[in-house]
Amino acid sequence: MMHPDKLLSMTTLPLHLAELMGKPVNDIDTPALVIDLDAMKRNIGRLAEFAKKHNIRWRPHAKMHKSAALARMQIKAGAVGVCVQKTAEAEAMVAGAVYNVYISNQVIAPAKLARVAALTQRVAAHGGQIAIAVDSLEGVSRLAQAMTEARTSPREDSGAAPAATVIDVFVEIDVGQGRCGVTPGPAAVTLALEIRKHPALRFAGLQAYHGGAQHVRSALDRQAAIAQVVAAVRRTRQLIAEQGMTVGLVTGAGTGTFALETASGVYGELQAGSFLFMDRDYAANERDSAQPVFEHALFVKSQVMSVCASHAVVDAGHKSHAIDSGLPAVHGLALDYANGGDEHGILRGAVLPELGEAVWLIPGHCDPTVNLHDFMVGVRGGLQHGTVEQIIRVDARGALS
Amino acid sequence: MMHPDKLLSMTTLPLHLAELMGKPVNDIDTPALVIDLDAMKRNIGRLAEFAKKHNIRWRPHAKMHKSAALARMQIKAGAVGVCVQKTAEAEAMVAGAVYNVYISNQVIAPAKLARVAALTQRVAAHGGQIAIAVDSLEGVSRLAQAMTEARTSPREDSGAAPAATVIDVFVEIDVGQGRCGVTPGPAAVTLALEIRKHPALRFAGLQAYHGGAQHVRSALDRQAAIAQVVAAVRRTRQLIAEQGMTVGLVTGAGTGTFALETASGVYGELQAGSFLFMDRDYAANERDSAQPVFEHALFVKSQVMSVCASHAVVDAGHKSHAIDSGLPAVHGLALDYANGGDEHGILRGAVLPELGEAVWLIPGHCDPTVNLHDFMVGVRGGLQHGTVEQIIRVDARGALS
Repeated sequence: MMHPDKLLSMTTLPLHLAELMGKPVNDIDTPALVIDLDAMKRNIGRLAEFAKKHNIRWRPHAKMHKSAALARMQIKAGAVGVCVQKTAEAEAMVAGAVYNVYISNQVIAPAKLARVAALTQRVAAHGGQIAIAVDSLEGVSRLAQAMTEARTSPREDSGAAPAATVIDVFVEIDVGQGRCGVTPGPAAVTLALEIRKHPALRFAGLQAYHGGAQHVRSALDRQAAIAQVVAAVRRTRQLIAEQGMTVGLVTGAGTGTFALETASGVYGELQAGSFLFMDRDYAANERDSAQPVFEHALFVKSQVMSVCASHAVVDAGHKSHAIDSGLPAVHGLALDYANGGDEHGILRGAVLPELGEAVWLIPGHCDPTVNLHDFMVGVRGGLQHGTVEQIIRVDARGALS
Repeated sequence: MMHPDKLLSMTTLPLHLAELMGKPVNDIDTPALVIDLDAMKRNIGRLAEFAKKHNIRWRPHAKMHKSAALARMQIKAGAVGVCVQKTAEAEAMVAGAVYNVYISNQVIAPAKLARVAALTQRVAAHGGQIAIAVDSLEGVSRLAQAMTEARTSPREDSGAAPAATVIDVFVEIDVGQGRCGVTPGPAAVTLALEIRKHPALRFAGLQAYHGGAQHVRSALDRQAAIAQVVAAVRRTRQLIAEQGMTVGLVTGAGTGTFALETASGVYGELQAGSFLFMDRDYAANERDSAQPVFEHALFVKSQVMSVCASHAVVDAGHKSHAIDSGLPAVHGLALDYANGGDEHGILRGAVLPELGEAVWLIPGHCDPTVNLHDFMVGVRGGLQHGTVEQIIRVDARGALS
């Protein structure tokens, strides 16, 4: 019998992709986003082992892969649920039977907050839980209003009577990223106290993620950055405790630093998502010895469409892969990839590939690369001689709102 | 009665978008890609007037807007058809009743060439024509084989008997872009002679596009670059003529330079696409006096989700707009947009916007920005007080193959 994940992902498959199942890698048309399923499975195993050994929860970020099937795969391996950044991503996860979803971001528009509140009703029927981050009093107030309204109107999906659901609320503190979050210290206490006033909100802890630190190349410099993060978290936690409240959970950490947050003893949950695919940018970091080794598992299969004396041109440009964190690397060949625009990549090297030859690219940044594709082709048995085993839909592709 | 374009684009609309029709701009959730329909219409009018005045064809590039509705709108205003870069884009255009399609790019994979040949059969029934570019003997040979096979098998779409269709083939010469195309001169003659050998191929002329020249800031420098382009085209055309063949059409030119190619008298067709939306990058060029003035017509509507003393954060990052040609500009407000990652933008300035306030962004580069969205919201009457008049599907979003 076919595995339910395969059935689920095949229900809306375009014919040309459905026909790929069981075929050799060679049959995959280009450009295509391809997952080395063996490497991905090993990456999941390594993170699961790390989390078990250090007795820490992991709620990996689904903003990266945007696929309910991959979220379920990680939950099966021990993850407690998923993080997302957008309401529409949360909806895509819940639609794909992922019922523990943390929107690790601010949501301010009342129309979106009504959708968030509706999600709390929907997952409650499955024993699930929705969580969200806040960084303003206005944000708390709008969230409370949406939750209260959802408690008094019939459920949007089934028309059933609403439940008195509660949403977990994390106070986001800015631990060095300089983006969202209140300043660590008293401002966080004020928000925690405000959350406590609303019966439909539950103060769940602190959101403390330093995105910039993930990509600092030197292991020592990353240690210094996370030491400051941890100090800010401790200080804030202490102030909140002095008000008689408990910080249930500190959540954060990415693929670049999670061994450090884990070692601090302050964090209870890791949000790392990119370890699953391991892009070129993360692989360029000097590895912390406490960090597991992850393999590249995501590739863009491209093809040579033009060759001249000085260079070859492949059919994958920055509509096939994101370039915000740099250009892709060429897998297994001594070639440099130069930007050829939206639809082309220019390869240079001592030995150029031939017209029609397949060239595998390792994306600079996996998150926005995945977001360019509707499907990922899962290959078992390697990129040379493997076969297509699974087509994975990017359920939350373009889920911006 | 509703205009057929509106009916067509509404048939597959998600409910939340269908409900937006006729609503005020204020109701558009964020982030969303919004077209100022009045500005776009003026842009179309200016290019149509320019083309008419100079008696030159325009076949604007649909790789930019990826929408059959917008292609039909331009054809109604005088365009002869569309250019595209990918087979899948051509398929999306034909599916949307656009029957004159030029794939201004190399196609090498036999599976794709079979699809191209099938398209020639499909558009023939509507009096249409498919064209393609080549830059290698192998490319000519593979194309000829696919066309021959299509002439002997029943039509894929209807099962009808095949027609003896012919595809228009342009020889691409590299006029300075350093990407695809053969060196101007004898190599192009060789290809033209080769094309002539195949009854299903018709030598249509030269593809001569200098992408890099489009974004040269100084008008004088652009003139110098296009002067070299024109010299290379003339030389190649002369050599082909000496072999007794006629270069029917020279096609190329983009939004940054088309007044120059037009003035040369050598070009018969303009491919400019971006003039329709006019992104931040093109607007930064010093304008050539012969060039019409185009207005920004494409915006990302975003919303402030977090504010602190030093900055505000909007809910649109580089999953909402492409950053390959630089960050977006903020429309109508004295604010700088800094990169906040995949889902966030950081605004700095003397007066920060308030939590929940709408902020309109002008994308750095329209082509890959459009490719991130499934729909564009067309607004009539301005971004402040206008209403939603049309929802335009990005038919070829993610059409990579």
